[in-house]
Amino acid sequence: MTNTPLILNPAQRRRPDLTETRNRLRLGQSSARAQMQESIQIAQSPSCRHVFLKTDFEHALACAARPGIEALPLAGLAISSKDLFDLQGQTTAAGSVVLAQAAPALHDGPAIARLKAAGAIVMARTNMVEFAFSGVGVNPHFGTPVNAADQTLARIPGGSSSGAAVSVATGAAFIGLGSDTGGSIRIPAALNGIVGFKSTARLVPTDGALPLSTSMDTVCALTRSVRDAMLAHEILSGQRVIRSPSPLRAYRLAVARPLMQDGLDSGVARAWQHSLDVLRQSGASIADISLPELDDLPAINAIGGFSPIESHAWHFKLLQTHADQYDPRVLARIQLGAKASARDYIELLAARRNWIVKMEAALQDFDAVLSPTVPIVAPPIADVAPGPERDSVFFKINAQLLRNTSVVNMLDGCALSIPCHAPGDLPVGLMVWSVAMQDHAVLNIAQQIENQLSIYFKNNS
Amino acid sequence: MTNTPLILNPAQRRRPDLTETRNRLRLGQSSARAQMQESIQIAQSPSCRHVFLKTDFEHALACAARPGIEALPLAGLAISSKDLFDLQGQTTAAGSVVLAQAAPALHDGPAIARLKAAGAIVMARTNMVEFAFSGVGVNPHFGTPVNAADQTLARIPGGSSSGAAVSVATGAAFIGLGSDTGGSIRIPAALNGIVGFKSTARLVPTDGALPLSTSMDTVCALTRSVRDAMLAHEILSGQRVIRSPSPLRAYRLAVARPLMQDGLDSGVARAWQHSLDVLRQSGASIADISLPELDDLPAINAIGGFSPIESHAWHFKLLQTHADQYDPRVLARIQLGAKASARDYIELLAARRNWIVKMEAALQDFDAVLSPTVPIVAPPIADVAPGPERDSVFFKINAQLLRNTSVVNMLDGCALSIPCHAPGDLPVGLMVWSVAMQDHAVLNIAQQIENQLSIYFKNNS
Repeated sequence: MTNTPLILNPAQRRRPDLTETRNRLRLGQSSARAQMQESIQIAQSPSCRHVFLKTDFEHALACAARPGIEALPLAGLAISSKDLFDLQGQTTAAGSVVLAQAAPALHDGPAIARLKAAGAIVMARTNMVEFAFSGVGVNPHFGTPVNAADQTLARIPGGSSSGAAVSVATGAAFIGLGSDTGGSIRIPAALNGIVGFKSTARLVPTDGALPLSTSMDTVCALTRSVRDAMLAHEILSGQRVIRSPSPLRAYRLAVARPLMQDGLDSGVARAWQHSLDVLRQSGASIADISLPELDDLPAINAIGGFSPIESHAWHFKLLQTHADQYDPRVLARIQLGAKASARDYIELLAARRNWIVKMEAALQDFDAVLSPTVPIVAPPIADVAPGPERDSVFFKINAQLLRNTSVVNMLDGCALSIPCHAPGDLPVGLMVWSVAMQDHAVLNIAQQIENQLSIYFKNNS
Repeated sequence: MTNTPLILNPAQRRRPDLTETRNRLRLGQSSARAQMQESIQIAQSPSCRHVFLKTDFEHALACAARPGIEALPLAGLAISSKDLFDLQGQTTAAGSVVLAQAAPALHDGPAIARLKAAGAIVMARTNMVEFAFSGVGVNPHFGTPVNAADQTLARIPGGSSSGAAVSVATGAAFIGLGSDTGGSIRIPAALNGIVGFKSTARLVPTDGALPLSTSMDTVCALTRSVRDAMLAHEILSGQRVIRSPSPLRAYRLAVARPLMQDGLDSGVARAWQHSLDVLRQSGASIADISLPELDDLPAINAIGGFSPIESHAWHFKLLQTHADQYDPRVLARIQLGAKASARDYIELLAARRNWIVKMEAALQDFDAVLSPTVPIVAPPIADVAPGPERDSVFFKINAQLLRNTSVVNMLDGCALSIPCHAPGDLPVGLMVWSVAMQDHAVLNIAQQIENQLSIYFKNNS
């Protein structure tokens, strides 16, 4: 826990994580106001183009100067809030234009309220995929944030929490509040080389968050380290996380073959295999298991899955009058939900419950499973930019991005994505995941993995 | 608590309740075997015609002779189990013929298992409304149990736990395990002059019970007294109920006017008004409140409500091949669910959640509400016997029977029906109800009401 976390990404080297920054404030080596000025400077730099939909830098600076704020857990440091969340007095538009004129929120949602009460300062609302409906990160209305990891080619940020991830990867924000329904925290974490923790959904209230799938939506956060993820989760869930000193070899870990390891591109395959080697050399015992239960998912989701059905119910009235203002790619997915009957939906709910029981039995001898978070590194934005001529590529990449992460949402489980690529390479995420309510185990295992990879790369670079 | 409970009904005078019988066993004044013989004798009498679908008297007698059984909480006494529940090795047909050839259950369901572990002996499976789908109690396949309260005219038993109620009201069983989705415990309790407690649904597992509405189904019990209801609930829920010595005046009670008190027949109106007078004279403070929220229910249920939609999903495959074997009145209700879209159902779920929030706010100053359980006394079976020519009367009476009780299911609340009629009159139920998880308060309030009515009728008859 005393190791400085792994810093694999040039953009991240610019700025320490929340835990270290908070310690510097406590030692009098910096101030909340100075830190906020640095956050604003980064937010205004070209690396944050298209990242924010609304900023309030003056108010943020004033808050950072508030007496006593540095003594709070989040010490007056900057966080960002995905456009999905209610902030008192602001319109919640979820990256759309169709809600641009909606009434402002009357209250902060509970997740925002908990972060603010812990001393966080919301510096900005972040850009996102319209209504959180894909893992790519493209937004045709407000532009697409550029992945923070590659300075030479504009790559996708991943989504749907696209701006949230880039705000954290560039160093502007210390925590990016986002949501994860099929991978929307973990995909952009993996592609930008930061940490994304999808907690068990029930642990953080979803009130005041515009819904995508009420069965799957999880309110959670992006950070620059596992220890920051622990801190953010404690505040969001209102539960203390006991930091375990147990080494990696104390945990029962597994990798599932061949599923979730198929079709890796060369960058992901290399980082993934290398990481497993490093972890095994450090003493970790990692069993090879098969999870044939994953083969059931296409049939269970044949009717279209939860997000189209549940979001169609939410959007139904709006679609009657404003369908032409939606991103056509999002509209196509929502409209898939229109044809489902009540029976289809009830059977989907039952099939999910039964599948969770089978999966929990299959995983009962393991504390966590390791997988690549996504099977590919971030492709260029140009390949998937808005326009019907690129729709087929877009939907293919979207399916690749969601493939591994969405398993955990269906499981009602929890998962954390850690960077595992060699310094200088494009980011690759390693996902530590488990069944519902194993959040503290996943966080502690991820901390040990981050430590081991960090030690390895320090000694070998 | 030391009062012998109210015994208003001639059939009940035949046999003490479970609590008293258990005490007699402990004092050596009777034996489990002698009690079981008496149960079997009643079960074989004409009053129990059409009450049981399957009996196992020899096995029940053998179990009652088991050493040590009298020391268990239920002391080897007889209970009955609605045909809805899995009993190991028996077919669960839910009062239907369409499932008569279904595979036998591999295990007892958890509710049955808890009762057996507490020393109950299941003497028989009880008749019920096919698939639990109405409050009247008529079954065209297996006959209709006759209400236990009237020896001169065959009246409906109420349903859907029809046989369960008559098995308890006649004295054959000490506990009738049943289910309540819209009133299926409380309606037959009211019409037969016994006690029916519908607990908060989540407190007792519904596994091993054939579903009607997965959103509403509650596994619960019929008994001959409130103290027996407390005991049964402790065993079914696995939670201790603290018996409160607080008198009725310590509770904040309300009656809701005019809704739930409209359209009472003369027998119900007389008993209801008289009971309120008795309770007020005993010191109870009962506020008159209005609950305009109840006016929202027809619009919320316009699509047909939970039971048709959720049961249609369950019955869909069976209906493809066996629709002709269903009770036509049940089939008509199930088929109402076929037209609902996923959106209709999702909106119904959301409307229910919002309505519960409004109701809980409206009731926050009260520990419980009092209402008539059903607005009418039991009509003659002849009026509603199977046959299309009586369908319109049947559905009208069914709607009357369910009107008050179903409010509590929609609320996800809890409710207990106590007999409140004068000795010699047809049974009338007084319902004590509240929001979710107020089960212990409702039980204690009902105990006080039973005490007060009991004292009154003892002193005035």
